[in-house]
Amino acid sequence: MTPWERSLRVAFQGEHGAYSEEAAYEALGEDIRTVPCPRFEDVFDAVVQGRADVGVLPIENSLAGSIHRNYDLLLRYEDVHIVGEYHYRVRHCLLAVAGVRLEDLREVRSHPQALAQCEASLRRLGLTPVVAADTAGSARWVAETGSRTVGAIASRRAARVYGLQVLAEGLEDNPQNYTRFLLVAREPFTGKPEEGREYKTSVVFTLPNRPGSLFKALSVFALRDIDLTKIESRPIPGRPWEYLFYVDFIGHAEHGPGQRALLHLGEIAPFIRVFGSYPRHPFPR
Amino acid sequence: MTPWERSLRVAFQGEHGAYSEEAAYEALGEDIRTVPCPRFEDVFDAVVQGRADVGVLPIENSLAGSIHRNYDLLLRYEDVHIVGEYHYRVRHCLLAVAGVRLEDLREVRSHPQALAQCEASLRRLGLTPVVAADTAGSARWVAETGSRTVGAIASRRAARVYGLQVLAEGLEDNPQNYTRFLLVAREPFTGKPEEGREYKTSVVFTLPNRPGSLFKALSVFALRDIDLTKIESRPIPGRPWEYLFYVDFIGHAEHGPGQRALLHLGEIAPFIRVFGSYPRHPFPR
Repeated sequence: MTPWERSLRVAFQGEHGAYSEEAAYEALGEDIRTVPCPRFEDVFDAVVQGRADVGVLPIENSLAGSIHRNYDLLLRYEDVHIVGEYHYRVRHCLLAVAGVRLEDLREVRSHPQALAQCEASLRRLGLTPVVAADTAGSARWVAETGSRTVGAIASRRAARVYGLQVLAEGLEDNPQNYTRFLLVAREPFTGKPEEGREYKTSVVFTLPNRPGSLFKALSVFALRDIDLTKIESRPIPGRPWEYLFYVDFIGHAEHGPGQRALLHLGEIAPFIRVFGSYPRHPFPR
Repeated sequence: MTPWERSLRVAFQGEHGAYSEEAAYEALGEDIRTVPCPRFEDVFDAVVQGRADVGVLPIENSLAGSIHRNYDLLLRYEDVHIVGEYHYRVRHCLLAVAGVRLEDLREVRSHPQALAQCEASLRRLGLTPVVAADTAGSARWVAETGSRTVGAIASRRAARVYGLQVLAEGLEDNPQNYTRFLLVAREPFTGKPEEGREYKTSVVFTLPNRPGSLFKALSVFALRDIDLTKIESRPIPGRPWEYLFYVDFIGHAEHGPGQRALLHLGEIAPFIRVFGSYPRHPFPR
């Protein structure tokens, strides 16, 4: 980075040391400047209002499922585009103040989902889980109180941020623990598709409420051998038992079969919005 | 009910006065005996272990979306069958101790989702929302403390259970607020389909991870003009970005086109489980 360039400002939900912040650094490099935001909508606002260049948002965890709030917010914020994705491997760490040994600990504070994902490990270690609002905040609490009997489950980065030691890493009971993050920005990703590179496109659409309409909608992809990587349905507020369908597919909205599929989808779906086409982040198998 | 018949024992999640309990009475009549359970899995356990004849479980709210935990539990509890459904209209009531007037109240306690659904009403009334674990528990808290400045948002039934007065009803900002409940039992619903009555069937299946497989799966319904009322995907733990698909359709698993569709689905899906076929509860439009 040359001196007159400024760092990319990247908004994330949570406090410093949150898993989302660690994912942002992994995805975009250590040169970024992170912007902590209390709620997911604050991440969207930071991007829309120009306080951040990019927002990093968890959209799905491989064990817990979709983060539906962010699907709803993607729809609400019309000026925000998806420009990338990143598969982040969640590694839960047990943090404590310096000098404390594992056998000194009695309790462990963290977000309920992190505690649930470490249930067997905590039982094996004889530690009592204590629910807190978030993972990084739990680490901060341990650092601020200086407790010698309470640890926190949080990211490795949280240990660095709050000056704690990592007593154990990889506490998650199921190692297939990944979170897919979306990178969002005010301008869509407009790079010409590179030869040999895979792109992903995210869209949302509604369908007429009659038999076979979802089947017809999916035909526009299947008949072109386009791979769907995700389908998610969300309620339409005020229209009980009618749905918005969120679909991710391999392909580009402005080139090749992906473009033709979306034109075809327009004949079936009364409403379509393209959130963006972006380079696919290969998932490590 | 003749004297030697005993009341139907119906398990629900929450304390007495919970919306789920009110839904149970609406769906099954006032003659039932309700069995409160702390967690959703306790409802399943109560049914499996015979402490309840029926469990009443929320599966989807028309504003907030699916209750994913109950999808996961339906799959885990192999001996539980869906035997019915009920569309419950959620009417949030403002409860307070007797003699308190609306203008005396400063704060309102309730479950975060109930508070969120009454956001505009509470702002209009100048009441500060205070998060609590559940709605009925908030009503109980108000009754037990006898507070004259704190109210609760809960069901009309909670007012009766805890001896509170209903200061306002229908506080929800969006009146299209329905929760679909499933009725589950140890034995499937085996009644012969009645002429002229609609049945619904709920199934879950997996698919081979290749392009077009969801399209093929849906073709078994679409090609028979079978109406899908819901599709939901959930992650398969340990297999990141692979999914279980939960589908509800109009039809019967053991009769007519529904039966043939499921046979056909068996040619495509490596795993299928039928949760049950049951009379459709008409949704009031």
